[in-house]
Amino acid sequence: MGDKNRIFVTYQITSKKNIREIANDICLEQTVEVIEKLAQDKWLRENIIGQVEEITQNIVVISYNAEITGYQLPQLINILYGNISLKKGIKVIDIKFSKNFISHFSGPRFGIESIRKIIGVEYRPLLSTALKPMGKSPKELAGFCYKLALGGIDIIKDDHGLVDHSFCPFKERVELCQQAVKKAELETGKRVLYFPNITNSMEKMLKNLEWIKGIGVGGILISPMIVGWDFMRYLSDNIALPIMAHPALIGVLFSANNGISHEIILGDIMRLAGADLVIYPNYGGRFPWTEDICRKIDYALKKDLFHFKKAFPVPAGGIGVENIAQLKEFYLNDAVFLIGSSLYAYSDDITSNVRYFLGILGTNRMTPT
Amino acid sequence: MGDKNRIFVTYQITSKKNIREIANDICLEQTVEVIEKLAQDKWLRENIIGQVEEITQNIVVISYNAEITGYQLPQLINILYGNISLKKGIKVIDIKFSKNFISHFSGPRFGIESIRKIIGVEYRPLLSTALKPMGKSPKELAGFCYKLALGGIDIIKDDHGLVDHSFCPFKERVELCQQAVKKAELETGKRVLYFPNITNSMEKMLKNLEWIKGIGVGGILISPMIVGWDFMRYLSDNIALPIMAHPALIGVLFSANNGISHEIILGDIMRLAGADLVIYPNYGGRFPWTEDICRKIDYALKKDLFHFKKAFPVPAGGIGVENIAQLKEFYLNDAVFLIGSSLYAYSDDITSNVRYFLGILGTNRMTPT
Repeated sequence: MGDKNRIFVTYQITSKKNIREIANDICLEQTVEVIEKLAQDKWLRENIIGQVEEITQNIVVISYNAEITGYQLPQLINILYGNISLKKGIKVIDIKFSKNFISHFSGPRFGIESIRKIIGVEYRPLLSTALKPMGKSPKELAGFCYKLALGGIDIIKDDHGLVDHSFCPFKERVELCQQAVKKAELETGKRVLYFPNITNSMEKMLKNLEWIKGIGVGGILISPMIVGWDFMRYLSDNIALPIMAHPALIGVLFSANNGISHEIILGDIMRLAGADLVIYPNYGGRFPWTEDICRKIDYALKKDLFHFKKAFPVPAGGIGVENIAQLKEFYLNDAVFLIGSSLYAYSDDITSNVRYFLGILGTNRMTPT
Repeated sequence: MGDKNRIFVTYQITSKKNIREIANDICLEQTVEVIEKLAQDKWLRENIIGQVEEITQNIVVISYNAEITGYQLPQLINILYGNISLKKGIKVIDIKFSKNFISHFSGPRFGIESIRKIIGVEYRPLLSTALKPMGKSPKELAGFCYKLALGGIDIIKDDHGLVDHSFCPFKERVELCQQAVKKAELETGKRVLYFPNITNSMEKMLKNLEWIKGIGVGGILISPMIVGWDFMRYLSDNIALPIMAHPALIGVLFSANNGISHEIILGDIMRLAGADLVIYPNYGGRFPWTEDICRKIDYALKKDLFHFKKAFPVPAGGIGVENIAQLKEFYLNDAVFLIGSSLYAYSDDITSNVRYFLGILGTNRMTPT
């Protein structure tokens, strides 16, 4: 199956037990799921069972033959952390894919560069907001869309809680909001991407996909931890629209001694699953995230990863007048700032609020035209 | 929208901050996601925003209008723990659904009673094993199937790591294994259910569904936390086959101060998502689960929950000769014991190993025929 076609996973172990024993357990648990006695076969050991590559104090590197993933995302996640999620004190802190494994995936279909081209903003960070609050009618939300787009905002996304509600039906919302954005675009000449949240029952999501493409929306918002990581990848591969990923429920993966590191999930796995833009809580906001975490996610979304395009970091949650200039220095230009309440509340005129924040983000082009 | 149509969620808070403030934050964060200032509207407060019902020390009960779930599983999960998963010190420890909410879901399509009827075992606990290890060919696995079925085992499931591999293609495995089970059934007259693991890319899973029904398998194995909770519900509603749920990756939801209680996920949510049989690590095995956790899951799978059928608890992971008799006393009869390595390793003759374990589980019928 090719010796070099292996995936290297680094685990941090928090336990008083013997580290080598734990490492051997992981090799079996994540692959053949049998006791040592039943795992003596030479071919199994060489081709199927995980192999301990290195142990340094409490850090263990295990390699897996990429072939056992079946080159599909669900099984990769299963190999990475399926059964051992049910144990304690094992955390995935690094992952290195083989070129062969990655060659089975497309990664972000658009990525930073294509999205910049579509929007026509080549230089500055992008500005985004969420349509909210849940409870507003499609007409009211479309009213926000028009005003936001008139101000020249780059991306408008549905709040991820906007689904298909009796008080705000999905199709009506998407149609009216996209029409409102279009109307403003025609007036200003500035392209604005509207990302509706498509979360729904599986039947309805599958049914709505073709419909939504016909509406001409700018992209799709989806919460992969809730509807399935491979469903997002499916969208990316089958619907030619930019994908924005929301981190709802993803927090359960993050803990000091268990789970998977922030940057692996919000960086590597997000790109593997086809996200073009990745929302995550910014440091210093209402979520307890640190600068260090945000730096690592930002890096993982843009680092070289075989043929994968770079994805946009979309920091969110507590970005406002007080910190946006500083955040621009932190993230530099390749970021989308998702500003919710602060943008709505800055003044009663949300169109001029958009212009105000855009002013802080600076010029559109590298060189004056 | 009906005052009584509310879902009550109990949160355990671990924090030094003011509990009422945290409770109010949850009410906003899980619904409208705006700051208090933007959430003053009376209609919003009455119909959309969560309401604090009770605070007792660090335990908070919040109710949500069921209407905001859109009566779909992904949005329920989002309301329950979406954004607050990204915070710390908030754990969901109880949930009470409204009758109206539950009326939108079918629950387990078969449940304990129908599965017993299909298999023809009305009284004793059921015996199950997993086809393993990954790495065996379809022919070898089918060989195990035949021997296991000849012994009269009730359920054979794929190991959840068996996907669609170059060394063990999905369709070949499922066909050969089902044929082997059928052959043994014809010889013994005893019905045996084979549950293939259908985990694959979304495209292939959707494509394989009709095919798999045609093969005549006994059910389907799926890992909802990996492929999506609502995808499992979709299978249950659209494919008339019993659904067995595997807990891969589910462990990330369980922690002392964060996440969601074991019995809510492995009990209530599993039934809501249509699982007929729910695998989870048994206490005392290689996973650090307690008797108390197992007792609560067992209860949640069988408790009255409006029109939902009861689902089978399927304790697994370290069940063998040494504890099976004791486990029968613990779970009584309505359980499926999933025995992996111990069943394969008890002697070289797995047919007689099955008979040996069945002997411990006792008689098939309540009264001798």
